Amino acid sequence: MKTIRAAVVGYGNVGKFVLEALEAAPDFEIAGIVRRDPTNVPAELSKYNVVGSIKKLQNVDVAILATPTRSVEKSALEALEAGINTVDSFDIHTLIPSLRKTLDAAAKKAGKASIISAGWDPGTDSIVRTMLQACAPKGLTYTNFGPGMSMGHSVAVKSKNGVKDALSITIPTGQGVHRRMVYVETEPKAIFEKICFDIKADPYFASDETHIFQVESVDALKDMGHAVNLVRKGVSGKTNNQLFEFNMHINNPALTGQIMVAAARAACRQAPGCYTLIEVPPVDLLPGERDSWVGKLV
Amino acid sequence: MKTIRAAVVGYGNVGKFVLEALEAAPDFEIAGIVRRDPTNVPAELSKYNVVGSIKKLQNVDVAILATPTRSVEKSALEALEAGINTVDSFDIHTLIPSLRKTLDAAAKKAGKASIISAGWDPGTDSIVRTMLQACAPKGLTYTNFGPGMSMGHSVAVKSKNGVKDALSITIPTGQGVHRRMVYVETEPKAIFEKICFDIKADPYFASDETHIFQVESVDALKDMGHAVNLVRKGVSGKTNNQLFEFNMHINNPALTGQIMVAAARAACRQAPGCYTLIEVPPVDLLPGERDSWVGKLV
Repeated sequence: MKTIRAAVVGYGNVGKFVLEALEAAPDFEIAGIVRRDPTNVPAELSKYNVVGSIKKLQNVDVAILATPTRSVEKSALEALEAGINTVDSFDIHTLIPSLRKTLDAAAKKAGKASIISAGWDPGTDSIVRTMLQACAPKGLTYTNFGPGMSMGHSVAVKSKNGVKDALSITIPTGQGVHRRMVYVETEPKAIFEKICFDIKADPYFASDETHIFQVESVDALKDMGHAVNLVRKGVSGKTNNQLFEFNMHINNPALTGQIMVAAARAACRQAPGCYTLIEVPPVDLLPGERDSWVGKLV
Repeated sequence: MKTIRAAVVGYGNVGKFVLEALEAAPDFEIAGIVRRDPTNVPAELSKYNVVGSIKKLQNVDVAILATPTRSVEKSALEALEAGINTVDSFDIHTLIPSLRKTLDAAAKKAGKASIISAGWDPGTDSIVRTMLQACAPKGLTYTNFGPGMSMGHSVAVKSKNGVKDALSITIPTGQGVHRRMVYVETEPKAIFEKICFDIKADPYFASDETHIFQVESVDALKDMGHAVNLVRKGVSGKTNNQLFEFNMHINNPALTGQIMVAAARAACRQAPGCYTLIEVPPVDLLPGERDSWVGKLV
């Protein structure tokens, strides 16, 4: 099978799972790992080329950007300018159109493709929402998240004064409404009531039902499992009450890493430009020949 | 919104729902209805051009082939040769690759696009199966159908000697295994035991658990509802036990008609050739500008 040479940019929580997915894939070769500190080489990376910049790697077909969302644009532009296709899991929904516009221009200039927001939401959930919109053009779709850890909300709590460590769990209460369960490990002498006040005033929590608990160890509560329940009830043509539901219970960074690898493969198959997952033929996410998947999956 | 001129070819169970979906869509104009007997014009078709051949219609962008599966190839070739994009819901899974090959050559010759097997299975279920294969490359997907009427199985029973009318309901028993519940209205003097023997010997039923009941009126039992429960448990990268599930409870011909209309729109947007739904960007199924859907659905 023709080999795609991929670079993993960023080796945090998601980057580790991207590497595992690349190792498990039949059609990828690992060109190297890009880290801020390339001298930091844990045992499992000893057989790979670990560098400080993607420009130091040779013959890279695609860069998988497992960087913080806020760094995605910069990393993507750098890779595209170096003539490398890119994939990211940029997850700030409201900023996706502008990132897409910026990277579309850069990708076309470079003659390369960039697939953005290629995680599970945004990402595969977006594919399901699009498909259900086509199946029942009138109606409502609700995406219910959890139970599972919200990275964004946890980080918001950790930023409060007096917080040593924190975990925010998203609980779905239906119709896209969520409850936040927040577990806080405080600094010595911190006043818990003050921390609670600060959390509830934060825009991340202000409009949601939020419950806050003081715990001895946040680490003891950490579980990377997450879940989605996506429902649509709508009208096909003039026929009402068409019911659709998509559920998953998954290890969050493992699924994100796997989807990014599938999207990296798809990026190598698209015409120059920037795409979200709903703009890519689903079969392009799979290894090997299109014809064989048509026979197996259609 | 730019108007797509569509012809509905065939006006049976599915054709009626195709027409409703076209009438409900914001971007379609109905060029006409093609029927074997164009003098047969029910009241709801009085405002449309009803003809005996697609060649009698003017400026048709896309032909929606709501014909029996066995007539699809002939109808599609005729439309493509007339320079018209086509959509069908061809549903014999094993014959899809060869239909795709035949229509791909014809479509490329005509400079037009053909989207085949654009129903819910094959069709949107195929999109879900493809997406889940990308999310968890190792594992098993089971598609469980029902409870709901199987057209193919009902027709098989109706073909037996002594059967006046028949209905075969598919019941899922899990892991893609199905039970068949068959309701038979017999001709006078027919021997029910002989009919049961013939049904159980038919390849449609030979390998499934089949229960057969004699009823006074098959018509009194007919309900167009159907259901799917599609599950995958698999491995993302090296992480096991990733769980996914897609469910729907729908009016069967209404959903088929709606998906065919969405695919007709997509056909007008593809490069010349023949495609199954897993080969088409999902956003192309939706009306209007791609950019606005990226903002709403991703």
